[in-house]
Amino acid sequence: MSTPIPVGAWAVIFISKRREVDQGYAETGERMLELVAEQPGYLGHHSVREQDGTGITVSYWRSEEDIRAWRDNAEHRLAQQRGRELWYDGFDTQVCRVERSYQFVRKP
Amino acid sequence: MSTPIPVGAWAVIFISKRREVDQGYAETGERMLELVAEQPGYLGHHSVREQDGTGITVSYWRSEEDIRAWRDNAEHRLAQQRGRELWYDGFDTQVCRVERSYQFVRKP
Repeated sequence: MSTPIPVGAWAVIFISKRREVDQGYAETGERMLELVAEQPGYLGHHSVREQDGTGITVSYWRSEEDIRAWRDNAEHRLAQQRGRELWYDGFDTQVCRVERSYQFVRKP
Repeated sequence: MSTPIPVGAWAVIFISKRREVDQGYAETGERMLELVAEQPGYLGHHSVREQDGTGITVSYWRSEEDIRAWRDNAEHRLAQQRGRELWYDGFDTQVCRVERSYQFVRKP
C-alpha cells in the first residue's frame, strides 16, 4: 500500500482455507479483481496465501455502504456461492472500522 | 479460528514486507508467540507469509486497552524496534473495531 489507510475507512478481513479443487477458481479470481477495481469506494487490497491453502485477504473501503454494494453485486454473489460450494473448506469474514493507522517505510 | 470473532472485538492488521536478513527473527517470533498468548484480552491470530516476503498477520483482542498494553510490553517494544532496524522493508498497521463477523464451515 503506497499511502496509509485513513482512519474512518473500513476493512474487510477474509481468512480462508482453500480446497484442492480449481474448477474456475483462478479465472473467477482474476475477474473479481477487474470488477472490484471498478467498485465505488474501493481503496485497495492485500492478499497472501501459503502452500497449505491458508490465505488472508484484506480489502479497504470508503464506507460500509460501499462494502454492502460489492457484497450484493450479482457477479460477485455467484462467485461467493461457488466459493461455498467448491473452493473453500471454510472461511471467516470480519467487517471492521479502521480506528488507528500507522505506516513504516525503510529509508533508502 | 474455531469460533467466529465476536462483534465488538478488535482486530490488528499487520501487513509487512520482510528483508532477507534473519538475525534473531525466527527466535524473536517464537518468543512473541509465547508472550502474546499470556496477554490479557488476547483472542487469537492468523499469520500468512508468501515466498516473496509479503505477509499478513491479524490478531484479535477483547478491547483497545488490551492492544495498547501489548504494544507497550517492554519485550515486545524491543522486538518492534528490531523490526524497524533489521527485519522489515516496510509495514502497515491498522487497529480496527469488528462491526460484523461471519463464518462458513464446510459440512463433512
